[in-house]
Amino acid sequence: MVGRPVKQERAERTRAALIQAAAKLFGEQGFSGTSVVKIADEAGLTLGAVYFHFRNKSELAREIVFRQPEWVVTPRPSEGLQRVVDVSLTWACQLLDNPILQAGARLVWEQEQFNSPDENSHRQWAEIIMDDLLVAQRRRELRAGTDVQALSRLVVYACTGAQMHSFIETRRADLPERVVEFWQLLLPAVATPATARRIELSECRGRPE
Amino acid sequence: MVGRPVKQERAERTRAALIQAAAKLFGEQGFSGTSVVKIADEAGLTLGAVYFHFRNKSELAREIVFRQPEWVVTPRPSEGLQRVVDVSLTWACQLLDNPILQAGARLVWEQEQFNSPDENSHRQWAEIIMDDLLVAQRRRELRAGTDVQALSRLVVYACTGAQMHSFIETRRADLPERVVEFWQLLLPAVATPATARRIELSECRGRPE
Repeated sequence: MVGRPVKQERAERTRAALIQAAAKLFGEQGFSGTSVVKIADEAGLTLGAVYFHFRNKSELAREIVFRQPEWVVTPRPSEGLQRVVDVSLTWACQLLDNPILQAGARLVWEQEQFNSPDENSHRQWAEIIMDDLLVAQRRRELRAGTDVQALSRLVVYACTGAQMHSFIETRRADLPERVVEFWQLLLPAVATPATARRIELSECRGRPE
Repeated sequence: MVGRPVKQERAERTRAALIQAAAKLFGEQGFSGTSVVKIADEAGLTLGAVYFHFRNKSELAREIVFRQPEWVVTPRPSEGLQRVVDVSLTWACQLLDNPILQAGARLVWEQEQFNSPDENSHRQWAEIIMDDLLVAQRRRELRAGTDVQALSRLVVYACTGAQMHSFIETRRADLPERVVEFWQLLLPAVATPATARRIELSECRGRPE
């Protein structure tokens, strides 16, 4: 039984290496442009190792897309509307240098090749944001009558559109600014005046701007 | 000189046929998946005919992308904020069955292959919307202090994101509803109360829902 934990640890390291390699290739060349052979080469592993951990390229892509929220680690604990703002801004900032988030952003427009209509990244993010907006609503941070489902979808649309626009113009360098800009417009519109004044719209931390 | 107009008319018909053929293929298979040979075949024309009218595949794609606004014909004359709403909703409705608009929507995420960072469809639409929002501002339809540039970008982000989300879930069938939904949230937020009450958010005309 002595070898067990070592073996397990090695398996986890291999799995992590495969995800990093796949993310790099998906981010640069997209889903169609990437093959399982290229992923194995990039990770310095055999094809057998890839298929031991993942059934196929689609499973790797789904793993990367659906675990995006775990990679977005906000710099402080927050709740309600502040959390929605923090998550979107942290995502925008980390997207500048995190290959897994970059792969997720790139795979969004190819996801019909590996996701089903009911299970997709837009819906996943809208549900996460919706949960925080329901907290915001209970805490009376939103103006009366705000449609939280419509707002959660609008935030996802805005992040998606801003990311694409920013990618083509500046390779995403101006994405954090664009996210701040739409929140400056949206916050006074949906938050109570006291909440809108309290919400912090901090640019990327630890990043010279 | 008798042959001239006939010749010119035929050239225009050929050009239009090429654009329709290219739009169909771009819409279905994207920019990378389409070749000039396939476009010629689809149009029932020779390769020579394609190259007589267009320098290459990129020029065809640019022609389709940058002429999108001409294809969005609103059902009534309108101005200011009503026009912004009408254009976005007409686009969403016509996208359901217009191959040229479908090609434009599909080409958006491949446009780095044929457009420059400074000349892209997002920016083009943001500028069109901005012009109408400036009219809206002069007519005092917007709340004081509304940032019209931020709003024009947010509308483009929202349309882009809604289109992508809708495409993966319903092949765009629910896009008009999604556009109505975000306007119901945005209008009371950015328009003066009198304007928000006056704006018509009509679903697709002549379309059974």
